[in-house]
Amino acid sequence: MKVLEIYKIGGNCIDNEQVLDTFLNDFTGQAQSKILVHGGGVMAGQMANSLNIPVKMIDGRRITDRETLKIVTMVYAGWANKNIVAQLEKRGCRAMGLSGADGSTMVSVQRNPLPVDFGFVGDLTPEGINTDLINDLLRLGITPVFCAITCTKKGQLLNTNADTVAGVLASAMRKYFHVRLIFVFDKEGVLYPQTGEVIPLLSKKQYQVLKEQKIVTSGMLPKLDNAFAALEKGIEEVYVGKTKLQL
Amino acid sequence: MKVLEIYKIGGNCIDNEQVLDTFLNDFTGQAQSKILVHGGGVMAGQMANSLNIPVKMIDGRRITDRETLKIVTMVYAGWANKNIVAQLEKRGCRAMGLSGADGSTMVSVQRNPLPVDFGFVGDLTPEGINTDLINDLLRLGITPVFCAITCTKKGQLLNTNADTVAGVLASAMRKYFHVRLIFVFDKEGVLYPQTGEVIPLLSKKQYQVLKEQKIVTSGMLPKLDNAFAALEKGIEEVYVGKTKLQL
Repeated sequence: MKVLEIYKIGGNCIDNEQVLDTFLNDFTGQAQSKILVHGGGVMAGQMANSLNIPVKMIDGRRITDRETLKIVTMVYAGWANKNIVAQLEKRGCRAMGLSGADGSTMVSVQRNPLPVDFGFVGDLTPEGINTDLINDLLRLGITPVFCAITCTKKGQLLNTNADTVAGVLASAMRKYFHVRLIFVFDKEGVLYPQTGEVIPLLSKKQYQVLKEQKIVTSGMLPKLDNAFAALEKGIEEVYVGKTKLQL
Repeated sequence: MKVLEIYKIGGNCIDNEQVLDTFLNDFTGQAQSKILVHGGGVMAGQMANSLNIPVKMIDGRRITDRETLKIVTMVYAGWANKNIVAQLEKRGCRAMGLSGADGSTMVSVQRNPLPVDFGFVGDLTPEGINTDLINDLLRLGITPVFCAITCTKKGQLLNTNADTVAGVLASAMRKYFHVRLIFVFDKEGVLYPQTGEVIPLLSKKQYQVLKEQKIVTSGMLPKLDNAFAALEKGIEEVYVGKTKLQL
């Protein structure tokens, strides 16, 4: 089975021109089939601020109301997505920027408003991925670049967690590929606290020990929990930076 | 040779939900290969207003500075494009929203800053169109939905006139298709002033007479001039609404 690499980049990459440049050079250099999934970075928040749209939070989680949906669609699917695509094309990588609406590539369901109404937020499962169309694009030599905007069957755009998008795409594309899922971040990988060197292979058991010893810092916990969850769902290879995870 | 229909819609369609709905129903019903090109509507201006970004004009023409480019990319490639795609997918039309950056489908050149520096504005010619990739997408049953954002070889996004985009795409795609270019607008077509009925066929000569008699109103002049120019460039069929033009 052919290898498909799915890279997820977030704000720490998108908001730093130099980090993004380095990543896009490396990414373009990967010869095999690949997909890029990106989050939004700080720009959506800045735009909301400039437009005096208040950030609404419930239990520490952001609510996507109608105005916020407009902003994230503009920033993620418009500015961020098209700039990443332009930078990849400039490097000779044949890229196509997509939201879940495009070709119904990612059909989601609006999250149940009970117990908490998060607004225009989409939940995505592998059944919602148009794997055939994505595979057709890959066979044309196209690298899909997905922003984390999905869409319901009824044409409602929805804000979606970018880590979730990457994980669900990875699960779904196993139909056609041996999938390698890579969560890119600003560090090289998970680091040994003493030496600062990358841990090449991290088992779930070792991860538990690092957590208990509070060696893995708080910012890394959700990233690693999410990455191990992807591994548990059957994705063949999962990396956090250059650290390979195993169960 | 197979027929390809290229529809161009502007603000009068995009800004009116009911007009857009009717158009998208008709568009989805067209069985042959088709492309949609859309302008931006009033939202970009509203967004610039809300963000207190002044509209800069020289000789009555808008200048696209860096901040304006960001706004038009967000509004055209993000909000407008993804909503149109979502509404088409809901109707069962397999649509994919693209800028010129995506797959280098529309590679433009930044307009010479002399004599007037229009800023981040792109000029597009048929040589800049990736006709092979667009044809590949059409063969997959995909309807490309283009916003009027193009991109240089060096990855610079550029604001481009949507009528020009439609005309240049039409010229370029003649390589593979018998092209029918349709400029959609709020009226049914060019109307007889007495009866209000659509003129089914309008020759350039008749158009000159209507202009001299001031029967064609001023708002229609640039549209019709532009449409006749497309016809003169060799595009097989050009319509303004339901009025077919001929030389």
